[in-house]
Amino acid sequence: MNAPTPPIRSTDRAEGASTPEAATPDAATFLDRLFADGVLMPSGVDGLYGRSGAFEEVIEGFERLVERFARADGAIKVHFPPAMPRVNMEKSGYLKSFPQLAGAIHSFVGNDADHCRLIEALTEGRDWSDLQSPTDVVLTPAACYPLYPAVAARGPLPEAGALFDLKSYCFRHEPSKEPTRMQFFRMRENVCLGSSEQVRAFRERWLERGPEMIRSLGLPCELDVANDPFFGRGGKLMARNQRDQQLKFELLVPVNDGAEPTACLSFNYHQDHFGALWGLTRADGERAHSACVGFGLERIALALFRHHGTDTATWPAAVRAVLWG
Amino acid sequence: MNAPTPPIRSTDRAEGASTPEAATPDAATFLDRLFADGVLMPSGVDGLYGRSGAFEEVIEGFERLVERFARADGAIKVHFPPAMPRVNMEKSGYLKSFPQLAGAIHSFVGNDADHCRLIEALTEGRDWSDLQSPTDVVLTPAACYPLYPAVAARGPLPEAGALFDLKSYCFRHEPSKEPTRMQFFRMRENVCLGSSEQVRAFRERWLERGPEMIRSLGLPCELDVANDPFFGRGGKLMARNQRDQQLKFELLVPVNDGAEPTACLSFNYHQDHFGALWGLTRADGERAHSACVGFGLERIALALFRHHGTDTATWPAAVRAVLWG
Repeated sequence: MNAPTPPIRSTDRAEGASTPEAATPDAATFLDRLFADGVLMPSGVDGLYGRSGAFEEVIEGFERLVERFARADGAIKVHFPPAMPRVNMEKSGYLKSFPQLAGAIHSFVGNDADHCRLIEALTEGRDWSDLQSPTDVVLTPAACYPLYPAVAARGPLPEAGALFDLKSYCFRHEPSKEPTRMQFFRMRENVCLGSSEQVRAFRERWLERGPEMIRSLGLPCELDVANDPFFGRGGKLMARNQRDQQLKFELLVPVNDGAEPTACLSFNYHQDHFGALWGLTRADGERAHSACVGFGLERIALALFRHHGTDTATWPAAVRAVLWG
Repeated sequence: MNAPTPPIRSTDRAEGASTPEAATPDAATFLDRLFADGVLMPSGVDGLYGRSGAFEEVIEGFERLVERFARADGAIKVHFPPAMPRVNMEKSGYLKSFPQLAGAIHSFVGNDADHCRLIEALTEGRDWSDLQSPTDVVLTPAACYPLYPAVAARGPLPEAGALFDLKSYCFRHEPSKEPTRMQFFRMRENVCLGSSEQVRAFRERWLERGPEMIRSLGLPCELDVANDPFFGRGGKLMARNQRDQQLKFELLVPVNDGAEPTACLSFNYHQDHFGALWGLTRADGERAHSACVGFGLERIALALFRHHGTDTATWPAAVRAVLWG
């Protein structure tokens, strides 16, 4: 059963694109509808949901769309599990900028006696975290984090730079009832390494492709300058710097209720931040620059369910053709 | 560049199937060859590796093979992220049986002053785990764990039982240099819920299909009774019980060097363990039984790379046809 599909116009929000307020008055209601219609399954923890087969088919269809747009680029596909070495996160500065979002994996490394204490704590409903020790691994916060040290280990980049195609589950500790803010979500990324000119040209290309892709799915969208959610008082300055230098753009689509649209794609120019951090060099010995485009796969699927209804069989034929034609 | 492909005979090991000792004398060497030929990428942590595009294509091809075998079953596809609620793991008994394998996610939840202490610890290279708090989520140890409470929430099963098709990244804390023992790996699972007869018939069907599938890929294999790696002294009895009742079978393929072949598929009859735990009932009000077949996707891919060489372009035409034909 579908609630009425909100009206859609594939235009920039600035030109008066639809927002879905009319259909569902608050974010909880959209989430409730996703649960009621079996698109998502609750787990009891905010931001941690099962996905239906139909939800997965939407993501698969969207990924094929990305591949069609990117085919001529010849990116190298690599894949990383959803975790990375703890030492790499320590070195990356992520814990300085986003300590609130990071997830570290702790495990039991005790003996039989410790095991008895663990079972006792569980039986009595007590906290058992004192019986857990930090492991060598932490959860990946963005798909490209494991890439840079892996590429650096191979030596200098080729003259034309290098282009990679990645996908990973990512973790961010931000429990929320907004369905677009999941604790575990999948990010597809294309990452370009090379000279400043090479990686900025890559980003420009995707800044054109992104809105074209999203509009082909019958979704309204708007490009905007953005910043990452840097932590604390010190973070405000970093956020302002990032905006002033236009290092981050986001493609926003109305998904949740209320005024704020959701960043479904992001386009980031890192300057030589990762190049310096990991010793990534170009063929001429200069430090490498990098840029990436990230696709928030769950967010894009949710945008489609929001605008076209929870039953994919009733989606507009043109949208179905783009996804599964 | 490929090392010589070890000889292969698609027969049971009991009938004299090939083992790959001849090509590479120890497990470290097989892993080194995977690194050298770019099939896997080292991260610096044992059991945590990047995968090449070719590795991913092998997994995709194998999953299509599973889908061809399973098509007539009409399983319902659902997908869960690689984590589950902490309370569900506490309730499941996993921490009692396998405390050493479980992974709990800890995060920073402090204020600006705590953040300063975190940065200080990082700068001085000190342990920062005291600034992390347990979150509500833990990592999924097997693809089917999040399924049972989700199904139970929907009420009694239909009369014919229910069949689900799942895939998840799983975590097990067992750092190892054996490439088949990764800390993060993907498990595809088919899970049947219903009467004891229904779920045992399901398992019988896969006990026939499994060896047929693996032999169609030019791999030697052997079915054997098995047990889970229960922890500690008390675990020995549980393991013996499980073997005596033939609750677990594994399909073993030689992958690593040495005598022990690797479990690539497992076939498990849980009796009413999960039914009782989660209150899963059948249409007639009886407690549900469950069974599952699990495909260790990385292990199967590694078996193929081991037996057919690290360059998929040179794999036997018959194997290529099964995977990508």
